[in-house]
Amino acid sequence: MFTFSLPTKIIAGPNCIKENAKEIRSLGKKSFIVTGKNSASHNGSLFDVQAALEAENISAILFDQITSNPSINLVRKAAQTAREEKIDFIIGIGGGSPLDAAKAIAVLATNDLDDEALFSGPYAHPFLPVAAVPTTAGTGSEVTQYSILTNQHLETKTSIAHPGLFPKVAFLDARYTLNLPKLITIHTAIDALSHALEGYLSVKATDFSNLFAEKSLALLGECLPQLSADLAFRVREKLLYASMLAGVVIAHTGTTAVHSIGYSLTYFKEIDHGRANGLLLAEYLRFLAPSYNDKIQAILDLLQLKDISEFSDLMHRLLGKKEEITAAEVMQFSSKAAQAANLKNTLIKPTEQDIAALLQKSLTFLS
Amino acid sequence: MFTFSLPTKIIAGPNCIKENAKEIRSLGKKSFIVTGKNSASHNGSLFDVQAALEAENISAILFDQITSNPSINLVRKAAQTAREEKIDFIIGIGGGSPLDAAKAIAVLATNDLDDEALFSGPYAHPFLPVAAVPTTAGTGSEVTQYSILTNQHLETKTSIAHPGLFPKVAFLDARYTLNLPKLITIHTAIDALSHALEGYLSVKATDFSNLFAEKSLALLGECLPQLSADLAFRVREKLLYASMLAGVVIAHTGTTAVHSIGYSLTYFKEIDHGRANGLLLAEYLRFLAPSYNDKIQAILDLLQLKDISEFSDLMHRLLGKKEEITAAEVMQFSSKAAQAANLKNTLIKPTEQDIAALLQKSLTFLS
Repeated sequence: MFTFSLPTKIIAGPNCIKENAKEIRSLGKKSFIVTGKNSASHNGSLFDVQAALEAENISAILFDQITSNPSINLVRKAAQTAREEKIDFIIGIGGGSPLDAAKAIAVLATNDLDDEALFSGPYAHPFLPVAAVPTTAGTGSEVTQYSILTNQHLETKTSIAHPGLFPKVAFLDARYTLNLPKLITIHTAIDALSHALEGYLSVKATDFSNLFAEKSLALLGECLPQLSADLAFRVREKLLYASMLAGVVIAHTGTTAVHSIGYSLTYFKEIDHGRANGLLLAEYLRFLAPSYNDKIQAILDLLQLKDISEFSDLMHRLLGKKEEITAAEVMQFSSKAAQAANLKNTLIKPTEQDIAALLQKSLTFLS
Repeated sequence: MFTFSLPTKIIAGPNCIKENAKEIRSLGKKSFIVTGKNSASHNGSLFDVQAALEAENISAILFDQITSNPSINLVRKAAQTAREEKIDFIIGIGGGSPLDAAKAIAVLATNDLDDEALFSGPYAHPFLPVAAVPTTAGTGSEVTQYSILTNQHLETKTSIAHPGLFPKVAFLDARYTLNLPKLITIHTAIDALSHALEGYLSVKATDFSNLFAEKSLALLGECLPQLSADLAFRVREKLLYASMLAGVVIAHTGTTAVHSIGYSLTYFKEIDHGRANGLLLAEYLRFLAPSYNDKIQAILDLLQLKDISEFSDLMHRLLGKKEEITAAEVMQFSSKAAQAANLKNTLIKPTEQDIAALLQKSLTFLS
């Protein structure tokens, strides 16, 4: 038994926005561009989007104040502007933060919701349509129904999940990722790896979601060992493709314990999201290996790695020195993660003690 | 550069219709069931659909007069009833013929079109939504934007192709295929094979469409040698899954010369559609092999076959005695096929002479 739904039209290739400007036309006449402060101008994506909008006679309001791990208040502020300007649709440009912010703004632009109802619904009105332009290869948000925000009430990151959040169209142009700093390339690629790997090991995995996970893992297996060097355009394209495929995976399987635990590392220790996952992945595989050796060997084979030690070495080579974690932090984070909703997708639901052990082994533990 | 769009929500598994009746609710309150005379009652699909509609308080008009290779006039007749009854949406149940008819009825129920405009558009009004319940594993129509009808004006089968024709939801329950006669199982499986294989060899093939084609070919490679025996449910599920994947492929790549040529065999000689393709496939591979050996070897590897001879033997074992074809028929059919629109998707566009040679070699030629 499986269900598969991918309402997002995916358009990929160099110059795909300008060559497919008409795809945006059906979304409306007045757009709201949601992005971060600088990167969209530097990598050329903002210019391409603006040119496409102009070609189609679509007006645009620019909101370029999205920060990493956007807060509820930030998206409220943007949604207020969107309402005042009576916009028809939203274009998110950037990494996971602007894309997830764009989706949350699409919810709040048409719905009056307090902070709790923002995540839980019910949603009285259809959301505004969203077009997504990823400029990192990691989030997969361009093909998911999730918007993940920093939730100061719960002291973690929490998700809005709703079929109405699938972008109507995603434009994948790897040119925008060409000049990403090495560290961002690594962290985002590991985020994609984490999606494909967790999706493959999710209780919700199906033959069909595995088709995408396996392809994503195979592509990442080719790319990961090269990430510390300068990357050819062909590698950038593979990473963006792999990241999208991994997004399709988690759209169907959800994420698992790695994300549940990683959110605390990001919220409290400001460790980048992809990096946080990457720190945890090897011990996560070791945790599941005694019961799910076949699945884990399949993942390692796809990644062209011999065993979990080789996997661990690769992560270490890419991530460098691990962050420190104190006993108090371990206690705090494991208690927090034990309440996370996506924990239930894990093949073996870890106890609070399991999570504590995993954190201790994954970071540099200051006992 | 690629574009991927799969607006159909796919729900698969035993009992998936009854367990997901709410998915139909959003399509409207009054339905039009389009199916053939007997099979939908015999295989249980009609009963399940009616039970799901009843559970959701949706009324239904039954149109069970769809024949093989439905004509324009037949779908006009059904569309007339649909209009008079002011229905909200259509449920197609059956093999390719009822599903394609359901889609054409969805066009004609809201648009006044003469026979030519039915295929070419423009279409002034949105089509009615369609839900699809395949009861053979071959057509893939449940996940495509095509409706293929017998066109007596052009003396061939022609397609309506429009994004509005993707079914909103497809229910894949292999139980309905359990008691299919052996010959239908074989012909429809070879139709799926033809889709996956032609899609893989289409000029429009992309990495992404190949992901689906490769998986479909691998599954068919496991199933095809067993088709002459009684099939376990697990094999029936694989066939239905492979057929859907192959449908996703042709939704993106179109079909190629095999379909162009096969349509004449069906129109003039009443050879079943899947069978017609199957007769042609081996010679089609031989035609392309000198220039595209790597791609063809990849297909053969996925099918677990050594070379084209083994492929040809497998087709012969499944299809039995080949039909005869006269010199006059070869001339007529190759002239017809040379005008077909999907010919241009072929890696090497065959000339009329190429097509004539392919037909002579593929059937029993009466010179």
